[in-house]
Amino acid sequence: MEKIHTDELPLTTNSSEKQETVCIFGTGDFGRSLGFKLLQCGYPVVFGSRNPRMSSLLPKGAEVLSHSEAAQKSDIIIIAIHREHYDFLTELTEVLNGKILVDISNNLKINQYPESNAEHLAQLVPGAHVVKAFNTISAWALQSGALDASRQVFVSGNDSTAKQRVMDLVRALGLTPLDQGSLVAAKEIENYPLQLFPMWRFPLRLSAVLCLFLFLYCVIRDVIYPYVYEKKDETFRLAVSIPNRVFPIAALTLLALVYLPGVIAAILQLYRGTKYRRFPAWLDHWMLCRKQLGLVALGFAFLHAIYTLVIPIRYYVRWRLKNLTVTQVITNKDSPFIPSSAWLNDAYVSLGILGFFLFVLLGITSLPSVSNTVNWREFRFVQSKLGYLTLILCTAHTLVYGGKKFLNPSFLRWCLPSAYVLALIIPCTVLVIKFILIMPCIDKTLTRIRQGWERNPKISSALNGKTDI
Amino acid sequence: MEKIHTDELPLTTNSSEKQETVCIFGTGDFGRSLGFKLLQCGYPVVFGSRNPRMSSLLPKGAEVLSHSEAAQKSDIIIIAIHREHYDFLTELTEVLNGKILVDISNNLKINQYPESNAEHLAQLVPGAHVVKAFNTISAWALQSGALDASRQVFVSGNDSTAKQRVMDLVRALGLTPLDQGSLVAAKEIENYPLQLFPMWRFPLRLSAVLCLFLFLYCVIRDVIYPYVYEKKDETFRLAVSIPNRVFPIAALTLLALVYLPGVIAAILQLYRGTKYRRFPAWLDHWMLCRKQLGLVALGFAFLHAIYTLVIPIRYYVRWRLKNLTVTQVITNKDSPFIPSSAWLNDAYVSLGILGFFLFVLLGITSLPSVSNTVNWREFRFVQSKLGYLTLILCTAHTLVYGGKKFLNPSFLRWCLPSAYVLALIIPCTVLVIKFILIMPCIDKTLTRIRQGWERNPKISSALNGKTDI
Amino acid sequence: MEKIHTDELPLTTNSSEKQETVCIFGTGDFGRSLGFKLLQCGYPVVFGSRNPRMSSLLPKGAEVLSHSEAAQKSDIIIIAIHREHYDFLTELTEVLNGKILVDISNNLKINQYPESNAEHLAQLVPGAHVVKAFNTISAWALQSGALDASRQVFVSGNDSTAKQRVMDLVRALGLTPLDQGSLVAAKEIENYPLQLFPMWRFPLRLSAVLCLFLFLYCVIRDVIYPYVYEKKDETFRLAVSIPNRVFPIAALTLLALVYLPGVIAAILQLYRGTKYRRFPAWLDHWMLCRKQLGLVALGFAFLHAIYTLVIPIRYYVRWRLKNLTVTQVITNKDSPFIPSSAWLNDAYVSLGILGFFLFVLLGITSLPSVSNTVNWREFRFVQSKLGYLTLILCTAHTLVYGGKKFLNPSFLRWCLPSAYVLALIIPCTVLVIKFILIMPCIDKTLTRIRQGWERNPKISSALNGKTDI
Repeated sequence: MEKIHTDELPLTTNSSEKQETVCIFGTGDFGRSLGFKLLQCGYPVVFGSRNPRMSSLLPKGAEVLSHSEAAQKSDIIIIAIHREHYDFLTELTEVLNGKILVDISNNLKINQYPESNAEHLAQLVPGAHVVKAFNTISAWALQSGALDASRQVFVSGNDSTAKQRVMDLVRALGLTPLDQGSLVAAKEIENYPLQLFPMWRFPLRLSAVLCLFLFLYCVIRDVIYPYVYEKKDETFRLAVSIPNRVFPIAALTLLALVYLPGVIAAILQLYRGTKYRRFPAWLDHWMLCRKQLGLVALGFAFLHAIYTLVIPIRYYVRWRLKNLTVTQVITNKDSPFIPSSAWLNDAYVSLGILGFFLFVLLGITSLPSVSNTVNWREFRFVQSKLGYLTLILCTAHTLVYGGKKFLNPSFLRWCLPSAYVLALIIPCTVLVIKFILIMPCIDKTLTRIRQGWERNPKISSALNGKTDI
Repeated sequence: MEKIHTDELPLTTNSSEKQETVCIFGTGDFGRSLGFKLLQCGYPVVFGSRNPRMSSLLPKGAEVLSHSEAAQKSDIIIIAIHREHYDFLTELTEVLNGKILVDISNNLKINQYPESNAEHLAQLVPGAHVVKAFNTISAWALQSGALDASRQVFVSGNDSTAKQRVMDLVRALGLTPLDQGSLVAAKEIENYPLQLFPMWRFPLRLSAVLCLFLFLYCVIRDVIYPYVYEKKDETFRLAVSIPNRVFPIAALTLLALVYLPGVIAAILQLYRGTKYRRFPAWLDHWMLCRKQLGLVALGFAFLHAIYTLVIPIRYYVRWRLKNLTVTQVITNKDSPFIPSSAWLNDAYVSLGILGFFLFVLLGITSLPSVSNTVNWREFRFVQSKLGYLTLILCTAHTLVYGGKKFLNPSFLRWCLPSAYVLALIIPCTVLVIKFILIMPCIDKTLTRIRQGWERNPKISSALNGKTDI
Repeated sequence: MEKIHTDELPLTTNSSEKQETVCIFGTGDFGRSLGFKLLQCGYPVVFGSRNPRMSSLLPKGAEVLSHSEAAQKSDIIIIAIHREHYDFLTELTEVLNGKILVDISNNLKINQYPESNAEHLAQLVPGAHVVKAFNTISAWALQSGALDASRQVFVSGNDSTAKQRVMDLVRALGLTPLDQGSLVAAKEIENYPLQLFPMWRFPLRLSAVLCLFLFLYCVIRDVIYPYVYEKKDETFRLAVSIPNRVFPIAALTLLALVYLPGVIAAILQLYRGTKYRRFPAWLDHWMLCRKQLGLVALGFAFLHAIYTLVIPIRYYVRWRLKNLTVTQVITNKDSPFIPSSAWLNDAYVSLGILGFFLFVLLGITSLPSVSNTVNWREFRFVQSKLGYLTLILCTAHTLVYGGKKFLNPSFLRWCLPSAYVLALIIPCTVLVIKFILIMPCIDKTLTRIRQGWERNPKISSALNGKTDI
């Protein structure tokens, strides 16, 4: 009795009977791969083709029919055809009426057409339920099973039933459907696979400009200046010495730029006396690419670390140390041990190592799989507390390093200070402002503002801030 | 015909008709962000507010009504109100009868109230189905889409239908619902976002105590002793030399502590002659935080590696090497090459590098996304076989390093042996016991015990061990 | 009204009423752990046992009955019994008729039986719906909640309803079900937990052979040759110097082998004039383990980096540098600074660092969680463009390093060239062919072929290539 009851209850459409047939229009690479994968997962597959006889390349077990015959066999029709050839579908409007059409097409350029391919399809076959899906998956990955890149399938569509059924299909193939809402989202979904690291563009450009400027600055001070005044050929410095000046400065500056927008936002909120006003667009954008800025900074810090560790292997350094020793022997001068130099040197090395260690920790916690296992309190603790500690350690590292150089007589060259002085401007500014912001009186006001308090309250938010989440 | 059939079949509640309306009580930050996101995903949203006119900050497209009017429009009501203000809901009990109330609230402290907010809500509105959800998600993340931290939404509730519908909602927003069972689990779910690395607390405290002890030990031996007996100022050692003694010892000790509980557990099982008795609580807890212990150890090993690589850059080291050379020239003594010293030195360096390499590999495989792609056999292979190999290499590294120092006359200072001797105690103990445990006769008994065999069998487990999984 | 409507609509089987009961046959470790977890998630659990009285070890709240009584209580019966004891189920065929039997068993060896355990079960109880699931999860992980390794549960079965219900169960336990199709897939699913890094086997074996060959080669040139001709004991080189020759060569060769199959495939496609013919099996296999090859290469590059950075700490190096200085003082010879040497040395160091940096970047992007967040265009950009840049930098690093050595008179020893010369063969070959392939005329043809064009077209693919995706 119980058994019968179970079998009759429809759990989902495609479970009380056999797996439903899926129809694929088009026998190109992606169509065949998808068909192959569907067959593997137990779905009967029928291909719709202009030329149904030719099936040498099609996966075994698939049927090949004319478009209209194939369409009649299934509720779900995957349109594996380029947008330019959609027109013939208008002849099939009657057969396609009420069917679910899955648009999987991609374009060659971002915003190539005024409306998305999926919306275009919906206009051509108004009686069908168009769902956008699968366009982010590669044919090769589907067939080989080597889903190294994303398993995420963005799905959008105006009809929820249709969308749900396509999402079930996606899930059955071992992929992860992500509902992106109505068909309006199709445009963004079609642009997605054409993007090339959009969030990284600003950080990378910024750091390129920064590096170029610092490189030229260092070339002028360390290569051209000695050449002009002392006729010394110091060009070999271009390979290691100058990069090892550019990279740490870029790293520290970018790290400070990660924390600068937060400080600016706090000042804005204090000034406005409310958190209920949008930040300017540039600040919003800056806040959203902080992670990328930080990772670029970490890259530079990593390069700086290796370039530093490699110093004693360099021919120039070995030659200089040897000559120093030889000179000392020949001149018979004593070189006493100066504890304060040892202190300064060891302190700056140690601060750098600890700063780099925390920086690497920050980098690891920003890996998607790691940040996914921490809660928001932990995430904020790492990114804010540990992040500021990193900034403090790295700034101190640079300051102590400078401590030695201030004693150096050849400090200014053509009125240009040492490059590391430039590195200190932004980090010190950020740290000073942050220090002011965490002073009790200011911090209290800021906390109240962030909890919803307003200096010139409108009624709504005053109420909201008190009772609602 | 076929088409009509499809459209009429209810796949899930919210797919045969338009997306169902969701009601949100409260117009605070989180309420608005959630409303914004729901609208984006195609759900009609209606806000319930005490003051329905004010809607300047609310997302476009949302309706604002009084609480009771809003509640009538939807089956699912999200309660975005602080627990302290739940009381007014008692006035709405009639309207809320049979509705799904989603409690998204958090507290300020762990275990702030005797019962969870969700259970409190269920007591206030006994006719409604209360579901706990969304409390681990941040408003900012919802709105900006920057879900850097967790996408996991813990869901609990006593009514399965209600829970299922909330889980569908969660999924539709692109988040991952995790069913945590009945509403009793709400307490734990509410505590979760307030936790700060609970599994890391013991390993971090342990290593802090360990580091402090080792630091003081080294200060006494390497700074105070020379000062007392030779009046030498060696305080500069505090910055690099002593940390580079403390870190490797801490790393090796913690790594050994990762494998010690497994060895203790094996001895306990051998002694008891059965695996069907619980381990003491401290052992269970220790076993569960082995991963964290190992990662802290890896952190120390990383620091040790950089502190070591930085040695030739240090002022003190350069000064000493220069002075050694100068002395050799002046005294005109020959310094012959000693192959055995080269062997010892190179062997210990090489063992350390290989040990560190394997240690980094272990760390990488413990990343959630990597460990998620291996099966249990592979995971155990890496964590056990590779782990023991790492421990052996690192212990050998320390032993060979010591090999040089035993020849040193200034071995004991104030009866204190060199710090590295302390480092060897636990690792050597673990390795010796492990070596005994894998001897065939003992290993065979242990394997049988782990397969369910008992020395003094009770009937049940004797049977189970033989036939059941 | 609305409320009642909601409550009556069956969302899924197990939501309109209380959670359904789950039956577990067998009270072994895994059975008990699964029962414990199911109870935790709100499912009533009933155990079927030969000896229903003994329940001391069973989780609290579970019922224990005889097999046939327990089976009657539930639709889903989890068979937590070893395959060898399945036979008694034939006595229960009547009770089990129409039930869902979940086979969770594993074997001790790959392909231990001609047919999978699940298929065997289906033959024994033909009236039941057998579903394979849970076999990849460990009992310990289920009970402790420490799901460090995979959360993925592979599910297969011939009946879709049954499979769906088991998948719902899997999801409710916080695990991720992956539909693997019909019960034929059970064999593969049962083999999965017995696998030990199958994709890594070829890369690891290849690199083991490569390392052994290079090691012997270096031992002959650097240890045996000086011993035979100069009676010098250079055996201490075995520990650091020779590994630091073997590792970089292995790294560069393996990195080149990552890009070689792509180049071969391109030549094959050009030669055949079509992409619609399968590559030979060895090439397919080689293409699929490129990621593993690259990661092994990265491991060697990492070792090479540390072995290099450690050079100035070595006793041998310090002794040699000291002696060089002493000799210079004694012979009173001047050692002038040679800028070209400084250039060569710094350039090769810098190229190596940059190459290593990009290599590490490639490694990070191949982490599952990172590669999951990039789209295909980005993934291909990183793995192809950045990959070739890495190969170019590393090859240039080796070439410039060689640049110094060509000046060395002791170039050939027993007609054997320096080991690094071997390292250059494959990378240079790959780069030269790639350079030819990207020349406009050839690149154009290749691109057309990859878009579906054929030199000797058959009708089908000519059409497909033009219009279908």
